[in-house]
Amino acid sequence: MMRTHTCGELRLKDTGKEIVLAGWVQKTRDLGGMTFVDIRDRYGITQIVFNQDEDIELCKNARKLGREYVVRIRGLVCERSNKNPEMPTGEIEIKAAKLDILNTSKVPPFTIEKTTDGGEDIRMKYRYLDLRRPDIKSNMELRYALSKACRSYLDAKGFIEIETPVLIKTTPEGARDFIVPSRLNQGEFYALPQSPQTFKQLLMVAGFDRYFQLVKCFRDEDLRADRQPEFTQIDCEMSFVDQEDVLNTFEGFIKHIFRTVKEIDLDDFPRMSYQEAMRLYGSDKPDIRFGMSIVDLSHQSKGKGFGIFDQADLVAGIVAPGAATWSRKQIDKLIDYIKTPQVGGQGLIWVKVNEDGSFKSSVDKFYNPDDLKLWQETMNAHPGDLLLLMSGNDLAVRRALGLLRLRLAAQLNLTDANDYQALWITDFPLVEWSEEDQRFVALHHPFTSPKKEDIPLMDTNPAQVKANAYDLVINGVEIGGGSIRIHERPLQEKMFSLLGFSDEEAKEKFGFLLGAFEYGAPPHGGIAFGFDRLCSMFGGTDSIRDYIAFPKNNAGRDTMLDAPSIADDKQLKELHLEIKKDHR
Amino acid sequence: MMRTHTCGELRLKDTGKEIVLAGWVQKTRDLGGMTFVDIRDRYGITQIVFNQDEDIELCKNARKLGREYVVRIRGLVCERSNKNPEMPTGEIEIKAAKLDILNTSKVPPFTIEKTTDGGEDIRMKYRYLDLRRPDIKSNMELRYALSKACRSYLDAKGFIEIETPVLIKTTPEGARDFIVPSRLNQGEFYALPQSPQTFKQLLMVAGFDRYFQLVKCFRDEDLRADRQPEFTQIDCEMSFVDQEDVLNTFEGFIKHIFRTVKEIDLDDFPRMSYQEAMRLYGSDKPDIRFGMSIVDLSHQSKGKGFGIFDQADLVAGIVAPGAATWSRKQIDKLIDYIKTPQVGGQGLIWVKVNEDGSFKSSVDKFYNPDDLKLWQETMNAHPGDLLLLMSGNDLAVRRALGLLRLRLAAQLNLTDANDYQALWITDFPLVEWSEEDQRFVALHHPFTSPKKEDIPLMDTNPAQVKANAYDLVINGVEIGGGSIRIHERPLQEKMFSLLGFSDEEAKEKFGFLLGAFEYGAPPHGGIAFGFDRLCSMFGGTDSIRDYIAFPKNNAGRDTMLDAPSIADDKQLKELHLEIKKDHR
Repeated sequence: MMRTHTCGELRLKDTGKEIVLAGWVQKTRDLGGMTFVDIRDRYGITQIVFNQDEDIELCKNARKLGREYVVRIRGLVCERSNKNPEMPTGEIEIKAAKLDILNTSKVPPFTIEKTTDGGEDIRMKYRYLDLRRPDIKSNMELRYALSKACRSYLDAKGFIEIETPVLIKTTPEGARDFIVPSRLNQGEFYALPQSPQTFKQLLMVAGFDRYFQLVKCFRDEDLRADRQPEFTQIDCEMSFVDQEDVLNTFEGFIKHIFRTVKEIDLDDFPRMSYQEAMRLYGSDKPDIRFGMSIVDLSHQSKGKGFGIFDQADLVAGIVAPGAATWSRKQIDKLIDYIKTPQVGGQGLIWVKVNEDGSFKSSVDKFYNPDDLKLWQETMNAHPGDLLLLMSGNDLAVRRALGLLRLRLAAQLNLTDANDYQALWITDFPLVEWSEEDQRFVALHHPFTSPKKEDIPLMDTNPAQVKANAYDLVINGVEIGGGSIRIHERPLQEKMFSLLGFSDEEAKEKFGFLLGAFEYGAPPHGGIAFGFDRLCSMFGGTDSIRDYIAFPKNNAGRDTMLDAPSIADDKQLKELHLEIKKDHR
Repeated sequence: MMRTHTCGELRLKDTGKEIVLAGWVQKTRDLGGMTFVDIRDRYGITQIVFNQDEDIELCKNARKLGREYVVRIRGLVCERSNKNPEMPTGEIEIKAAKLDILNTSKVPPFTIEKTTDGGEDIRMKYRYLDLRRPDIKSNMELRYALSKACRSYLDAKGFIEIETPVLIKTTPEGARDFIVPSRLNQGEFYALPQSPQTFKQLLMVAGFDRYFQLVKCFRDEDLRADRQPEFTQIDCEMSFVDQEDVLNTFEGFIKHIFRTVKEIDLDDFPRMSYQEAMRLYGSDKPDIRFGMSIVDLSHQSKGKGFGIFDQADLVAGIVAPGAATWSRKQIDKLIDYIKTPQVGGQGLIWVKVNEDGSFKSSVDKFYNPDDLKLWQETMNAHPGDLLLLMSGNDLAVRRALGLLRLRLAAQLNLTDANDYQALWITDFPLVEWSEEDQRFVALHHPFTSPKKEDIPLMDTNPAQVKANAYDLVINGVEIGGGSIRIHERPLQEKMFSLLGFSDEEAKEKFGFLLGAFEYGAPPHGGIAFGFDRLCSMFGGTDSIRDYIAFPKNNAGRDTMLDAPSIADDKQLKELHLEIKKDHR
């Protein structure tokens, strides 16, 4: 035994004990005849005191300790004269009798404290030091606590965790697969799973009734900020359920983990259809911690000679509460934002509802105070508010206003990070038209079932078909999504055909699933949650990277390992692969 | 809600309830006016009865049900007249009032029962049906129960589960890596981890103190029976520990899971050095449920004119208890076995110790009864026993006798499958000479620490250096292994150099670890257990495949998915890869 206690556990009641601690030097202070050394481990920090009068040699050695040295100290637990109520161990200190240096440390390339001087790049390269910082360390602890809360709820509800394979078959749908060359099957490749979707469905066919798995998934996408090529999913599936059963089970799940990990009791989750969410918030993942919903003003704004509005599909707006006092410059900034490619708007009409009831707007030429009063009333705005209107294509206007709404909420501090508002979005469209592929693509995935009453529309008007699909949204972030699946071969074939698969392709890629549906597939459905995203939401920050022990950067690189890297010729030869030279 | 109860939960006390069940048709029996249908789900089987006199239409429909149809039944819980005490639901039956066929089923390609007529190939192709069989289903349940027991012990001991990456860097040591081409980093490859070894060490450097993970690992090996290209490991690491701490912690772990999952209390695990295990059992994973240890007879057998023995490095033997009555044919079979390439022996000398105290041997020409009596005494054999002797190179003789010992134990029924005898094997050599590579290779891996007192031998006689390495063996199966690691850069560099790495190679491949060791790496060590193997040991069978939901066959193929498969040209083009044509 290298130590008798950890650096976080000694208390006043331990006074007088001979103990041994081990840990890292957090800091040292030299006060004349006394040297104080704080040593740290995962569990806490304990103060060690070296007294020159008692052992000059020992004290000399203590003075040589650098930051992050690894030490072992034997000593006596004593009551402190100047107690530190901020520290759990702050009532005691250790009078050192023996000091072993277990390892030295170079000066770390950044300070290992809550706020660090290290930039992202250097922290990633030395991730093992970054992980020593209290924030990142507690993120890992939070992640573990969350995983336990997830497992305990699902276990209590009769779910069984089953591991599905990582080396699977490449599929034509969804994002790009990572592929893995097979040496034993020359010229062939495995794929890494984007999700265990088909496996969990097969487990339902196999009769496991309730399955879950915390599982690594992979997507070879062009990485945007905060997307990782490998990520973790809480993957769940149930048999003999309808949509209501799944929503209730997983509303309970989310409530359980909030209660267990954050001691927060969430209210029941409202349900909102996709159509309603798009109409009111211009988004399928609305943040409902604040109102500011989108109001249709087409009727109240057309026919007054303002050509832009008159020709528009839709005129609509939102109310920025208390923003009537904003300067022209502030409003111009909003207009600039609206015109960014991300939002793609043409411009913004604004109306200030002054405190005295008068109006000032960018369309005073076309609309008189009575017109503007009607707008104010329709939008339920108050004196002091700022009305912001856009016009154009219905969906485009709503999307743009939805983004503007989020920006305003941030600017006006309308959201409280400690207020969690969850809701279910339901009734998603089954498919949407892809201009790029010139075919319909599945909004969720090809295994999502259409609403029974909409099945005939699959032949006549596919874009109108609604799916038994649902997303869980918390504070404007999509935390999970799922659906009731197709469980009958003919319907699955119809779906593949709608997505433009030939019968041969469908059989080649998903023959195993079509086959399974012929041997007694039960009705089933499920959901998957993004575990990394859930962790970052629980941790109260946006970056999922801070919740992954060894993340990759935006180029998909692990800069600590320096991976990916060159394969040696022997490896490529065994795999019968050649790297093509680029002749661009 | 599609059902009110599961097929396993109704009891006599539920009599009179209107219920709805859903499940698969296990079998139907037609008894004149009554039709009985057993329906099955994950939780059990319930008997449904259809009465022709009460509803002829319903009864007709019930008669059409085929095996594995998925049905929903509404009905009344009634007491059975002829109760079945074998079934938990055997005191009741459901008088059906309504029958919905939720899905039909083709006739399954093999019977879905405990003993099936399906061969391995067909069962793998239709794994979703194989998983319905009670044995395979309960294997998955056992696997989940074991995972829970593992996690609960490690959690209680302060271990924290941390996920390590799957897309990592290819390493030159150990087995062959699977590699994954990177699209964003042209010409470069990730590797899939053979174990999270370096990551868990970095987590110790990061200060996590106690880490574990149930984690998928990957090895691109030529597959022998019962090796899988992907497998699951229980991976653990601890800081500030010596070997004794690790052994005690994980002896507790193994005892806990046996107690929790099998209700078996294991005795304390004996410790045996590698050298002792090889000497007594010719194996580093001895089955100690029975004795039959190897006895050195060199002294008692040389110098009697029997050339083979006289020239041998070692003459040694084992005692087959009660086998003196074996026929010549039976003994010849043993000799055949000894000569198989797997054992690689030259032959076997046998001595029957007859019940009357006389001897009959294959070397009566060279040894008189007194000589044989001395052998009997040295080997502690009894009348009725058979002595089996081999000669040759010390290690080769012991290995061969070790294999013969196992074969005899099976033949003589010396082992009880329900008797679990665990032991620790310690003091493994650090390295061994590889004839193939013409260099020393690590017996465990390059991060294993040598015994402190043996470090000087690394320069002079590397094969003699003992490592702080240990294996856990139960009933002759290696269940886990680990070591105290090197935590100092100079020693790690010395080790790399001993393994024939140049400084440049060491830095290129393991620079991150060498770097980490310079920033306060604590002393640390750990262990990893093969989870698939552990499951099969708990389940009492040899095949790990039966404990994996979707295993691969010996060619590394998933025959259900038909993976691996051809990648399409677009995928290869994006990865800048070409498949080389084979010109053999």
